[in-house]
Amino acid sequence: MIRLDARLLEGIFVRELEAAKVEKASVDHVVASLLQTSLRGVDSHGIQLFPHYLRAVRAGRVNRAPRFSVESSGPSTATLDADHAFGHCSGAAAIDLAQELAAKTGAGVVSVRHSTHFGAAAYFALRAAGNGFLGFAFTNADALVKTFNGRSAFFGTNPICFTAPLEREEPLCLDLATSLVSWNKVRNRLASGEALEPGWAFDAEGEPTLDPSLARSLNPAGGYKGFGLGMMVEVLTGLLAGGPVATEILPMYGAPIEARRSISHLFMALEIRRFADPGIFRQRLQRMVDGLRALPAPAEPVLAPGDPEKHAFAERSRTGIPVSDALFASLLEVSDRFREAVCP
Amino acid sequence: MIRLDARLLEGIFVRELEAAKVEKASVDHVVASLLQTSLRGVDSHGIQLFPHYLRAVRAGRVNRAPRFSVESSGPSTATLDADHAFGHCSGAAAIDLAQELAAKTGAGVVSVRHSTHFGAAAYFALRAAGNGFLGFAFTNADALVKTFNGRSAFFGTNPICFTAPLEREEPLCLDLATSLVSWNKVRNRLASGEALEPGWAFDAEGEPTLDPSLARSLNPAGGYKGFGLGMMVEVLTGLLAGGPVATEILPMYGAPIEARRSISHLFMALEIRRFADPGIFRQRLQRMVDGLRALPAPAEPVLAPGDPEKHAFAERSRTGIPVSDALFASLLEVSDRFREAVCP
Repeated sequence: MIRLDARLLEGIFVRELEAAKVEKASVDHVVASLLQTSLRGVDSHGIQLFPHYLRAVRAGRVNRAPRFSVESSGPSTATLDADHAFGHCSGAAAIDLAQELAAKTGAGVVSVRHSTHFGAAAYFALRAAGNGFLGFAFTNADALVKTFNGRSAFFGTNPICFTAPLEREEPLCLDLATSLVSWNKVRNRLASGEALEPGWAFDAEGEPTLDPSLARSLNPAGGYKGFGLGMMVEVLTGLLAGGPVATEILPMYGAPIEARRSISHLFMALEIRRFADPGIFRQRLQRMVDGLRALPAPAEPVLAPGDPEKHAFAERSRTGIPVSDALFASLLEVSDRFREAVCP
Repeated sequence: MIRLDARLLEGIFVRELEAAKVEKASVDHVVASLLQTSLRGVDSHGIQLFPHYLRAVRAGRVNRAPRFSVESSGPSTATLDADHAFGHCSGAAAIDLAQELAAKTGAGVVSVRHSTHFGAAAYFALRAAGNGFLGFAFTNADALVKTFNGRSAFFGTNPICFTAPLEREEPLCLDLATSLVSWNKVRNRLASGEALEPGWAFDAEGEPTLDPSLARSLNPAGGYKGFGLGMMVEVLTGLLAGGPVATEILPMYGAPIEARRSISHLFMALEIRRFADPGIFRQRLQRMVDGLRALPAPAEPVLAPGDPEKHAFAERSRTGIPVSDALFASLLEVSDRFREAVCP
């Protein structure tokens, strides 16, 4: 296991994306999202995606020079057509617009159509909370979660992300797929040769499997509850944006790399001062988070949502981002310069 | 097991609440919510609550003649002070206001403070979807869900309800507690003398228990995910409304019956036409629901959220609401007239 320095990585990512003629705003947001996400310990949505993203933008699945068009549909609402941009860039524009609307009316809701994989949902919702808003981010994804009672996948891992500002630290951040575990955990077990945990995944017949090579779909979180929440996210994203939904969405990895996928997102911002004094709100939320952390716990401590990511961020900012040999090899396939980012 | 006729029940409920000098709007909404909820098969939040509600309003916990005050805080936002009204009534006023705001701006968000137990969240969100909006309803509740990693309960079962209009049937309705199962399921097992299922509940030490008499807290749905979603609901309700949160909230049953609890809710409506053609939206959502129901399934059929409730509604509207001997006895304690509602 080696560790990579985030600042050195940043320079290499920027250079590679610029060499692929990606416009500046897209470069900025892709790089910021990947590094923030890996520093926060969310390896499934961080720098490991870079080789895929580079292939996707070179092949034309992702538009290197998109032209956004925004349709304002009311004082609190808008739709952004992303022109197949990097989702990191269209999502940032959309959550920023949602904050502008919320600053005027109290609530801003922005739908995004014709987008691509947006990485970690937290990247967007944290922008809103960093500016004092409550933030929400949702996206659809290709079918990967087994229907409750059924045999096969229908909805994607369709995440829900919610953020709120705290008094003395980075915002509260809840960011969860509506599946019990991520597909990446299944792939990691395949790579390491370990069996899956019971309840994680199902085979092609929809039967539970512990064999990662046979896994074809994931268990929704909390059974029919996670399944229902995944459907809610699909309604808020694919249906409101008028894009493909559920099994209509091309798979991220299986489809031809040049094929455009038209992923849909939804972003929302709420202005706290319309409901409560923002200072008191932050103070009370901080007290709630502090109270949770101080609760008696038999083994592992009680954590607030986002605490594992805060711990990882503090450590990785000092020591670098740990990468497996396989990930390092896949980065080196893209550029030999990644050797320069290895921490001494 | 006997069955009670919903229309006959309605008359008896109205008479009893009027005898307790409850104002008309509260009577209307409490009765409509209890009957709709029991007809939809959600026995935990239906007519079984009537004896408790009657005791609560007689004792003054619930205000029989509330005066709502609405503070408009922006084009899309408002706060309603419920003056300790029945939550069914304050919630209906709030979701209707959220729809008015959404009709003007695209999004309406209404916080409710100083309220009481509001029954089933679906009652409110279904009002919005019945008028063509996307509807959301959230409430906090007294601590009953064990913290992830901890020993004891911190947040309530804090439900999430989401609704959307369909083309050829009643709206899609997702209504779920953020615990894996409801507290009522634990109480039912206690009454029947059956053991709990593994993973449902924990004892006073936070250890898993199958003994319903030892259960003190519930498992969150999907582990830390349900726990996080319950915290999100607490932020959206108790913190935005400035009311008590988490373990500050008096228990529904354990506290003195005259004690006011200041439950907080949040309601939201989104206007579909700001994002998509409403006819096409309903058509596509109907196709998604139809597609789900037609999926191959090894045992039980695949269902859309709310399908079990639609099936129950169709059957119970014909055959009456089934009640246990214990529930019937508790209704008879309130009024002997409930005998007149027994189906022949």
